[in-house]
Amino acid sequence: MKDFPGTPGTKTGLILRILQCVFAAGSIASMASTSYFFKFTAFCYLIASLGLQITWSFVLAIIDGYALVRNKVLQSPILISLFVVGDWITATLTLAAASASSGIAILYFNDLEGCNFIGECQKYQLSVALAFLSWVTIATSSLIMVWLLASS
Amino acid sequence: MKDFPGTPGTKTGLILRILQCVFAAGSIASMASTSYFFKFTAFCYLIASLGLQITWSFVLAIIDGYALVRNKVLQSPILISLFVVGDWITATLTLAAASASSGIAILYFNDLEGCNFIGECQKYQLSVALAFLSWVTIATSSLIMVWLLASS
Repeated sequence: MKDFPGTPGTKTGLILRILQCVFAAGSIASMASTSYFFKFTAFCYLIASLGLQITWSFVLAIIDGYALVRNKVLQSPILISLFVVGDWITATLTLAAASASSGIAILYFNDLEGCNFIGECQKYQLSVALAFLSWVTIATSSLIMVWLLASS
Repeated sequence: MKDFPGTPGTKTGLILRILQCVFAAGSIASMASTSYFFKFTAFCYLIASLGLQITWSFVLAIIDGYALVRNKVLQSPILISLFVVGDWITATLTLAAASASSGIAILYFNDLEGCNFIGECQKYQLSVALAFLSWVTIATSSLIMVWLLASS
């Protein structure tokens, strides 16, 4: 196995996992603080999908932190295969949720000429933006994992 | 380089490319045949994104067909790198477009209790379903390409 930035048990890997959690948590907090999100299937799906991603990224952040502190090498093919599958599932779900929510946010902001939910629209936009940032970090992790597995 | 189903210049690879074109063309045709798609940013984005995917998949289908007929090997690292980048960009754009459109389709079908655009809603649904099928085939090609590049 190769050892490059972002692989499990490295500082970059840990930073990526923490960023995934922070962006996803920010997105959920922003969306959950609105009063009408439960009326939109896509917004509920965003919360569910990012909730799954926080759980996944948090568990992997703990594993990365443990490996860093104990100087363990986390690169057995079985473990990396597991990481690849989990990363790809969460990355796909997060992109789908962020896109579906942005579709609705754009519908209300642009297509229907103005958003009627007073004070909530900025929160929808912020939530979608943070969800996309979360996707960027999980997609980076996913690509690194596939590369690591395939080049082993 | 390894030679497994789905790699460039194989029959499976060619079939995957043709399926990508067929599903994307079906999705565009279904969406473009509605009267009000241009009022929704997400539906316009779906057409643009799938248009790009048809172009990409069609060019690669021709290259695959040429390689099959002439018995050429299409596995130089530079060529595969180009295929990986193109496949990933189109796969991401297609998933984002399909998700954004499905967010709006679900909004009108479920959340707002019924679709008011008479006779058009089934077309929106069909278009979104075909876009997701197109994404499944391009995602398969993308994974094969990354695997091929990384294992070379």
